[in-house]
Amino acid sequence: MTAARGRGRPRDPETDAAILRAALELFIERGVEGTSIEQIAKRAGVGKLTVYRRWTTKEDLIAQAVEQLVSADMVPTTGEVRALAPQDIIEAGLKTAAETTASPAFRALVARMMGAAVSHPQLMAVYWRHHVLPRRELATAMLRRAQQDGTVAEDADLDVLIDMMAGAVTWRVLQPDPPDADGMLDYLKSVYRQIGLYPR
Amino acid sequence: MTAARGRGRPRDPETDAAILRAALELFIERGVEGTSIEQIAKRAGVGKLTVYRRWTTKEDLIAQAVEQLVSADMVPTTGEVRALAPQDIIEAGLKTAAETTASPAFRALVARMMGAAVSHPQLMAVYWRHHVLPRRELATAMLRRAQQDGTVAEDADLDVLIDMMAGAVTWRVLQPDPPDADGMLDYLKSVYRQIGLYPR
Repeated sequence: MTAARGRGRPRDPETDAAILRAALELFIERGVEGTSIEQIAKRAGVGKLTVYRRWTTKEDLIAQAVEQLVSADMVPTTGEVRALAPQDIIEAGLKTAAETTASPAFRALVARMMGAAVSHPQLMAVYWRHHVLPRRELATAMLRRAQQDGTVAEDADLDVLIDMMAGAVTWRVLQPDPPDADGMLDYLKSVYRQIGLYPR
Repeated sequence: MTAARGRGRPRDPETDAAILRAALELFIERGVEGTSIEQIAKRAGVGKLTVYRRWTTKEDLIAQAVEQLVSADMVPTTGEVRALAPQDIIEAGLKTAAETTASPAFRALVARMMGAAVSHPQLMAVYWRHHVLPRRELATAMLRRAQQDGTVAEDADLDVLIDMMAGAVTWRVLQPDPPDADGMLDYLKSVYRQIGLYPR
Protein backbone atom coordinates (compact mmCIF):
# COMPACT_ATOMS: atom_id res chain seq x y z
CA MET A 1 0.00 0.00 0.00
CA THR A 2 1.24 3.51 -0.77
CA ALA A 3 1.19 6.29 1.76
CA ALA A 4 -1.69 7.91 -0.10
CA ARG A 5 -3.93 4.93 0.48
CA GLY A 6 -3.35 5.09 4.19
CA ARG A 7 -4.97 8.50 4.53
CA GLY A 8 -7.82 8.24 6.99
CA ARG A 9 -10.31 5.43 7.05
CA PRO A 10 -12.77 4.88 4.22
CA ARG A 11 -15.97 6.54 5.44
CA ASP A 12 -18.16 4.81 2.94
CA PRO A 13 -17.03 1.65 1.11
CA GLU A 14 -19.70 2.22 -1.55
CA THR A 15 -18.28 5.64 -2.35
CA ASP A 16 -14.83 4.13 -2.67
CA ALA A 17 -16.15 1.40 -4.94
CA ALA A 18 -17.93 3.97 -7.11
CA ILE A 19 -14.75 6.04 -7.41
CA LEU A 20 -12.63 3.01 -8.33
CA ARG A 21 -15.23 1.86 -10.88
CA ALA A 22 -15.38 5.32 -12.46
CA ALA A 23 -11.57 5.50 -12.59
CA LEU A 24 -11.34 2.11 -14.31
CA GLU A 25 -14.05 2.96 -16.86
CA LEU A 26 -12.51 6.29 -17.77
CA PHE A 27 -9.00 4.84 -17.98
CA ILE A 28 -10.20 2.13 -20.39
CA GLU A 29 -12.29 4.58 -22.45
CA ARG A 30 -9.83 7.46 -22.67
CA GLY A 31 -6.43 6.34 -21.39
CA VAL A 32 -4.49 7.99 -18.60
CA GLU A 33 -4.02 11.18 -20.63
CA GLY A 34 -7.73 11.55 -21.25
CA THR A 35 -8.70 10.97 -17.60
CA SER A 36 -8.66 13.49 -14.74
CA ILE A 37 -9.56 13.35 -11.04
CA GLU A 38 -12.34 15.84 -11.84
CA GLN A 39 -13.90 13.53 -14.43
CA ILE A 40 -13.60 10.53 -12.12
CA ALA A 41 -15.34 12.43 -9.29
CA LYS A 42 -18.10 13.55 -11.67
CA ARG A 43 -18.77 10.07 -12.99
CA ALA A 44 -18.72 8.60 -9.47
CA GLY A 45 -21.18 11.27 -8.39
CA VAL A 46 -18.94 12.65 -5.62
CA GLY A 47 -17.07 15.87 -5.01
CA LYS A 48 -13.45 16.32 -6.11
CA LEU A 49 -12.33 16.64 -2.49
CA THR A 50 -13.80 13.24 -1.62
CA VAL A 51 -11.44 11.72 -4.17
CA TYR A 52 -8.43 13.80 -3.14
CA ARG A 53 -9.00 12.81 0.48
CA ARG A 54 -8.04 9.23 -0.39
CA TRP A 55 -5.80 9.44 -3.46
CA THR A 56 -3.08 11.99 -4.08
CA THR A 57 -2.65 11.42 -7.81
CA LYS A 58 -4.73 9.99 -10.62
CA GLU A 59 -1.94 7.48 -11.34
CA ASP A 60 -2.27 6.07 -7.82
CA LEU A 61 -6.06 5.93 -8.12
CA ILE A 62 -6.00 4.30 -11.57
CA ALA A 63 -3.39 1.77 -10.44
CA GLN A 64 -5.58 0.70 -7.53
CA ALA A 65 -8.66 0.52 -9.79
CA VAL A 66 -6.80 -1.72 -12.24
CA GLU A 67 -5.49 -3.87 -9.42
CA GLN A 68 -9.00 -4.51 -8.10
CA LEU A 69 -10.08 -5.79 -11.50
CA VAL A 70 -7.12 -8.02 -12.22
CA SER A 71 -6.65 -9.34 -8.69
CA ALA A 72 -9.84 -11.36 -9.26
CA ASP A 73 -7.73 -13.75 -11.36
CA MET A 74 -6.74 -17.10 -9.89
CA VAL A 75 -3.41 -16.94 -8.13
CA PRO A 76 -1.91 -19.83 -6.18
CA THR A 77 -0.83 -19.17 -2.61
CA THR A 78 2.78 -19.50 -1.51
CA GLY A 79 1.78 -22.69 0.31
CA GLU A 80 0.26 -24.20 -2.83
CA VAL A 81 3.32 -23.32 -4.86
CA ARG A 82 5.47 -25.16 -2.29
CA ALA A 83 3.17 -28.18 -1.98
CA LEU A 84 1.99 -28.81 -5.53
CA ALA A 85 3.70 -29.80 -8.77
CA PRO A 86 4.00 -26.83 -11.19
CA GLN A 87 1.98 -28.66 -13.85
CA ASP A 88 -0.90 -29.22 -11.43
CA ILE A 89 -0.94 -25.54 -10.45
CA ILE A 90 -0.97 -24.53 -14.13
CA GLU A 91 -3.71 -27.04 -14.94
CA ALA A 92 -5.92 -25.80 -12.09
CA GLY A 93 -5.69 -22.17 -13.26
CA LEU A 94 -5.83 -22.71 -17.04
CA LYS A 95 -9.54 -22.27 -17.68
CA THR A 96 -9.87 -19.09 -15.62
CA ALA A 97 -6.70 -17.69 -17.15
CA ALA A 98 -8.01 -18.38 -20.66
CA GLU A 99 -11.36 -16.73 -19.94
CA THR A 100 -9.75 -13.68 -18.33
CA THR A 101 -7.16 -13.10 -21.03
CA ALA A 102 -9.69 -13.59 -23.85
CA SER A 103 -12.10 -11.00 -22.45
CA PRO A 104 -12.46 -7.59 -24.14
CA ALA A 105 -11.96 -5.89 -20.75
CA PHE A 106 -8.55 -7.55 -20.32
CA ARG A 107 -7.45 -6.57 -23.84
CA ALA A 108 -8.52 -2.97 -23.33
CA LEU A 109 -6.77 -2.81 -19.98
CA VAL A 110 -3.52 -4.32 -21.26
CA ALA A 111 -3.49 -1.81 -24.12
CA ARG A 112 -4.00 1.13 -21.77
CA MET A 113 -1.42 -0.06 -19.22
CA MET A 114 1.21 -0.68 -21.90
CA GLY A 115 0.28 2.58 -23.55
CA ALA A 116 0.91 4.55 -20.36
CA ALA A 117 4.19 2.83 -19.47
CA VAL A 118 6.52 5.43 -20.97
CA SER A 119 4.45 8.62 -20.77
CA HIS A 120 3.24 7.91 -17.21
CA PRO A 121 5.90 5.70 -15.60
CA GLN A 122 4.41 6.30 -12.14
CA LEU A 123 1.31 4.31 -13.08
CA MET A 124 3.37 1.32 -14.25
CA ALA A 125 5.61 1.63 -11.17
CA VAL A 126 2.67 1.39 -8.76
CA TYR A 127 1.08 -1.45 -10.74
CA TRP A 128 4.41 -3.25 -10.93
CA ARG A 129 5.07 -3.02 -7.20
CA HIS A 130 1.60 -3.97 -6.02
CA HIS A 131 0.40 -6.38 -8.66
CA VAL A 132 3.13 -7.71 -10.95
CA LEU A 133 6.01 -8.30 -8.52
CA PRO A 134 4.12 -10.55 -6.04
CA ARG A 135 2.91 -12.68 -8.98
CA ARG A 136 6.40 -12.86 -10.42
CA GLU A 137 7.69 -14.12 -7.06
CA LEU A 138 5.17 -16.97 -7.14
CA ALA A 139 6.06 -17.75 -10.75
CA THR A 140 9.74 -17.80 -9.81
CA ALA A 141 9.07 -20.29 -7.01
CA MET A 142 7.12 -22.47 -9.47
CA LEU A 143 9.91 -22.32 -12.06
CA ARG A 144 12.55 -23.19 -9.43
CA ARG A 145 10.58 -26.28 -8.59
CA ALA A 146 10.31 -27.13 -12.29
CA GLN A 147 14.10 -26.76 -12.49
CA GLN A 148 14.44 -29.30 -9.64
CA ASP A 149 12.01 -31.57 -11.50
CA GLY A 150 14.15 -31.21 -14.61
CA THR A 151 11.48 -29.76 -16.94
CA VAL A 152 13.09 -26.31 -16.98
CA ALA A 153 16.81 -25.99 -17.74
CA GLU A 154 18.99 -25.36 -14.69
CA ASP A 155 20.76 -22.39 -16.28
CA ALA A 156 17.57 -20.70 -17.55
CA ASP A 157 17.07 -17.04 -16.63
CA LEU A 158 13.77 -17.19 -14.76
CA ASP A 159 13.00 -13.49 -15.14
CA VAL A 160 13.32 -13.91 -18.89
CA LEU A 161 11.04 -16.97 -18.85
CA ILE A 162 8.39 -15.02 -16.95
CA ASP A 163 8.65 -12.16 -19.46
CA MET A 164 8.25 -14.69 -22.29
CA MET A 165 5.03 -16.07 -20.78
CA ALA A 166 3.47 -12.74 -19.82
CA GLY A 167 4.82 -11.02 -22.93
CA ALA A 168 3.45 -13.64 -25.33
CA VAL A 169 -0.04 -13.40 -23.85
CA THR A 170 -0.15 -9.59 -23.74
CA TRP A 171 1.24 -9.27 -27.26
CA ARG A 172 -1.14 -11.92 -28.60
CA VAL A 173 -4.26 -10.23 -27.26
CA LEU A 174 -3.24 -6.93 -28.86
CA GLN A 175 -2.80 -8.44 -32.32
CA PRO A 176 -5.58 -8.36 -34.92
CA ASP A 177 -8.03 -11.27 -34.48
CA PRO A 178 -7.42 -12.09 -30.81
CA PRO A 179 -8.41 -15.63 -29.78
CA ASP A 180 -11.62 -16.51 -27.93
CA ALA A 181 -11.48 -18.41 -24.63
CA ASP A 182 -11.08 -21.82 -26.34
CA GLY A 183 -8.33 -20.51 -28.58
CA MET A 184 -6.66 -18.91 -25.57
CA LEU A 185 -6.72 -22.22 -23.70
CA ASP A 186 -4.72 -23.87 -26.49
CA TYR A 187 -2.48 -20.84 -26.70
CA LEU A 188 -1.66 -20.87 -22.98
CA LYS A 189 -0.92 -24.60 -23.06
CA SER A 190 1.45 -24.04 -25.95
CA VAL A 191 3.26 -21.24 -24.08
CA TYR A 192 3.57 -23.26 -20.86
CA ARG A 193 4.71 -26.30 -22.84
CA GLN A 194 7.51 -24.34 -24.48
CA ILE A 195 8.68 -23.08 -21.07
CA GLY A 196 8.59 -26.59 -19.58
CA LEU A 197 5.59 -26.10 -17.29
CA TYR A 198 3.11 -28.26 -19.21
CA PRO A 199 3.42 -31.78 -20.61
CA ARG A 200 4.23 -32.17 -24.31
CA MET B 1 0.65 -0.59 -49.79
CA THR B 2 -2.84 0.65 -49.02
CA ALA B 3 -5.03 2.36 -51.59
CA ALA B 4 -4.48 5.67 -49.87
CA ARG B 5 -0.75 5.55 -50.43
CA GLY B 6 -1.21 5.06 -54.14
CA ARG B 7 -2.89 8.45 -54.60
CA GLY B 8 -0.89 10.46 -57.09
CA ARG B 9 2.85 10.73 -57.09
CA PRO B 10 4.74 12.47 -54.28
CA ARG B 11 5.36 15.96 -55.62
CA ASP B 12 8.04 16.77 -53.11
CA PRO B 13 9.86 14.05 -51.19
CA GLU B 14 11.01 16.59 -48.60
CA THR B 15 7.43 17.56 -47.85
CA ASP B 16 6.51 13.90 -47.43
CA ALA B 17 9.47 13.37 -45.12
CA ALA B 18 8.48 16.40 -43.04
CA ILE B 19 4.89 15.14 -42.75
CA LEU B 20 6.00 11.64 -41.71
CA ARG B 21 8.46 13.09 -39.19
CA ALA B 22 5.79 15.35 -37.69
CA ALA B 23 3.33 12.44 -37.52
CA LEU B 24 5.85 10.25 -35.69
CA GLU B 25 6.81 12.98 -33.22
CA LEU B 26 3.21 13.81 -32.38
CA PHE B 27 2.24 10.15 -32.07
CA ILE B 28 5.09 9.52 -29.61
CA GLU B 29 4.39 12.72 -27.66
CA ARG B 30 0.61 12.51 -27.47
CA GLY B 31 -0.57 9.10 -28.66
CA VAL B 32 -3.02 8.49 -31.49
CA GLU B 33 -5.87 10.10 -29.54
CA GLY B 34 -3.92 13.30 -28.98
CA THR B 35 -2.82 13.61 -32.61
CA SER B 36 -4.80 15.03 -35.53
CA ILE B 37 -4.12 15.56 -39.24
CA GLU B 38 -4.42 19.31 -38.57
CA GLN B 39 -1.66 19.22 -35.93
CA ILE B 40 0.57 17.09 -38.15
CA ALA B 41 0.14 19.54 -41.04
CA LYS B 42 0.90 22.47 -38.75
CA ARG B 43 4.06 20.93 -37.34
CA ALA B 44 5.24 19.91 -40.81
CA GLY B 45 4.62 23.47 -42.01
CA VAL B 46 2.21 22.44 -44.77
CA GLY B 47 -1.48 22.89 -45.45
CA LYS B 48 -4.03 20.31 -44.30
CA LEU B 49 -4.94 19.51 -47.91
CA THR B 50 -1.35 18.60 -48.72
CA VAL B 51 -1.59 15.87 -46.08
CA TYR B 52 -5.07 14.71 -47.12
CA ARG B 53 -3.90 14.48 -50.72
CA ARG B 54 -1.64 11.57 -49.75
CA TRP B 55 -3.19 10.00 -46.64
CA THR B 56 -6.87 9.39 -46.07
CA THR B 57 -6.73 8.81 -42.32
CA LYS B 58 -4.37 9.67 -39.49
CA GLU B 59 -4.08 5.95 -38.69
CA ASP B 60 -2.70 5.28 -42.16
CA LEU B 61 -0.29 8.20 -41.92
CA ILE B 62 0.93 7.26 -38.42
CA ALA B 63 1.36 3.61 -39.45
CA GLN B 64 3.59 4.64 -42.36
CA ALA B 65 5.55 7.01 -40.15
CA VAL B 66 6.18 4.25 -37.60
CA GLU B 67 7.12 1.83 -40.34
CA GLN B 68 9.78 4.19 -41.69
CA LEU B 69 11.41 4.36 -38.28
CA VAL B 70 11.38 0.68 -37.45
CA SER B 71 12.18 -0.59 -40.95
CA ALA B 72 15.69 0.74 -40.37
CA ASP B 73 16.27 -2.30 -38.15
CA MET B 74 18.36 -5.17 -39.49
CA VAL B 75 16.26 -7.77 -41.19
CA PRO B 76 17.68 -10.78 -43.02
CA THR B 77 16.55 -11.32 -46.61
CA THR B 78 14.61 -14.43 -47.65
CA GLY B 79 17.80 -15.61 -49.41
CA GLU B 80 19.87 -15.23 -46.25
CA VAL B 81 17.29 -17.08 -44.19
CA ARG B 82 17.48 -19.97 -46.67
CA ALA B 83 21.27 -19.98 -46.93
CA LEU B 84 22.45 -19.33 -43.39
CA ALA B 85 22.15 -21.19 -40.09
CA PRO B 86 19.59 -19.57 -37.75
CA GLN B 87 22.21 -19.01 -35.07
CA ASP B 88 24.44 -17.12 -37.53
CA ILE B 89 21.55 -14.88 -38.59
CA ILE B 90 20.72 -14.14 -34.97
CA GLU B 91 24.37 -13.48 -34.10
CA ALA B 92 24.76 -11.05 -37.03
CA GLY B 93 21.74 -9.00 -35.96
CA LEU B 94 22.19 -9.11 -32.17
CA LYS B 95 24.11 -5.88 -31.60
CA THR B 96 21.81 -3.74 -33.74
CA ALA B 97 18.74 -5.37 -32.22
CA ALA B 98 20.03 -4.66 -28.70
CA GLU B 99 20.76 -1.02 -29.53
CA THR B 100 17.40 -0.48 -31.20
CA THR B 101 15.32 -2.11 -28.49
CA ALA B 102 17.21 -0.33 -25.68
CA SER B 103 16.63 3.12 -27.19
CA PRO B 104 14.12 5.52 -25.60
CA ALA B 105 12.52 6.06 -29.04
CA PHE B 106 11.76 2.34 -29.37
CA ARG B 107 10.27 2.16 -25.87
CA ALA B 108 8.07 5.17 -26.50
CA LEU B 109 6.93 3.78 -29.83
CA VAL B 110 6.13 0.32 -28.45
CA ALA B 111 4.08 1.91 -25.66
CA ARG B 112 2.10 4.03 -28.10
CA MET B 113 1.51 1.18 -30.59
CA MET B 114 0.37 -1.20 -27.86
CA GLY B 115 -1.68 1.55 -26.31
CA ALA B 116 -3.58 2.17 -29.55
CA ALA B 117 -4.20 -1.51 -30.35
CA VAL B 118 -7.70 -1.75 -28.89
CA SER B 119 -8.98 1.82 -29.20
CA HIS B 120 -7.62 2.25 -32.77
CA PRO B 121 -7.46 -1.24 -34.27
CA GLN B 122 -6.99 0.21 -37.76
CA LEU B 123 -3.53 1.49 -36.81
CA MET B 124 -2.43 -1.92 -35.52
CA ALA B 125 -3.99 -3.60 -38.58
CA VAL B 126 -1.99 -1.47 -41.04
CA TYR B 127 1.21 -1.89 -39.00
CA TRP B 128 0.61 -5.62 -38.70
CA ARG B 129 0.07 -6.11 -42.42
CA HIS B 130 2.96 -3.96 -43.63
CA HIS B 131 5.55 -4.41 -40.92
CA VAL B 132 4.93 -7.30 -38.57
CA LEU B 133 3.67 -10.03 -40.94
CA PRO B 134 6.64 -9.96 -43.37
CA ARG B 135 9.03 -10.21 -40.40
CA ARG B 136 7.04 -13.05 -38.91
CA GLU B 137 7.30 -14.92 -42.19
CA LEU B 138 11.09 -14.63 -42.08
CA ALA B 139 11.11 -15.72 -38.43
CA THR B 140 8.93 -18.70 -39.31
CA ALA B 141 11.36 -19.75 -42.06
CA MET B 142 14.23 -19.46 -39.57
CA LEU B 143 12.39 -21.51 -36.95
CA ARG B 144 11.52 -24.21 -39.53
CA ARG B 145 15.17 -24.53 -40.31
CA ALA B 146 15.96 -24.75 -36.58
CA GLN B 147 13.37 -27.53 -36.35
CA GLN B 148 15.20 -29.41 -39.10
CA ASP B 149 18.47 -28.84 -37.24
CA GLY B 150 16.85 -30.21 -34.09
CA THR B 151 17.30 -27.15 -31.84
CA VAL B 152 13.56 -26.33 -31.87
CA ALA B 153 11.04 -29.08 -31.09
CA GLU B 154 9.25 -30.51 -34.13
CA ASP B 155 5.81 -30.05 -32.60
CA ALA B 156 6.38 -26.46 -31.40
CA ASP B 157 3.78 -23.88 -32.44
CA LEU B 158 5.94 -21.39 -34.34
CA ASP B 159 3.47 -18.52 -34.07
CA VAL B 160 3.56 -18.92 -30.30
CA LEU B 161 7.38 -18.97 -30.30
CA ILE B 162 7.45 -15.74 -32.29
CA ASP B 163 5.00 -14.15 -29.84
CA MET B 164 7.21 -15.28 -26.96
CA MET B 165 10.28 -13.61 -28.48
CA ALA B 166 8.59 -10.37 -29.56
CA GLY B 167 6.37 -10.32 -26.48
CA ALA B 168 9.25 -10.75 -24.02
CA VAL B 169 11.19 -7.87 -25.54
CA THR B 170 8.25 -5.48 -25.77
CA TRP B 171 7.10 -6.28 -22.24
CA ARG B 172 10.64 -5.97 -20.86
CA VAL B 173 11.20 -2.50 -22.30
CA LEU B 174 7.93 -1.25 -20.78
CA GLN B 175 8.81 -2.43 -17.26
CA PRO B 176 10.39 -0.10 -14.71
CA ASP B 177 14.21 0.06 -15.10
CA PRO B 178 14.52 -1.01 -18.74
CA PRO B 179 17.95 -2.41 -19.68
CA ASP B 180 20.62 -0.44 -21.54
CA ALA B 181 22.11 -1.81 -24.79
CA ASP B 182 24.54 -4.14 -22.98
CA GLY B 183 21.79 -5.48 -20.74
CA MET B 184 19.56 -5.91 -23.76
CA LEU B 185 22.26 -7.92 -25.55
CA ASP B 186 22.32 -10.44 -22.68
CA TYR B 187 18.54 -10.38 -22.54
CA LEU B 188 18.11 -11.15 -26.23
CA LYS B 189 20.62 -13.99 -26.04
CA SER B 190 18.71 -15.46 -23.14
CA VAL B 191 15.41 -15.24 -25.06
CA TYR B 192 16.87 -16.81 -28.22
CA ARG B 193 18.56 -19.50 -26.13
CA GLN B 194 15.29 -20.49 -24.52
CA ILE B 195 13.62 -20.75 -27.94
CA GLY B 196 16.49 -22.84 -29.33
CA LEU B 197 17.94 -20.22 -31.67
CA TYR B 198 21.13 -19.52 -29.72
CA PRO B 199 23.72 -21.87 -28.22
CA ARG B 200 23.48 -22.64 -24.52
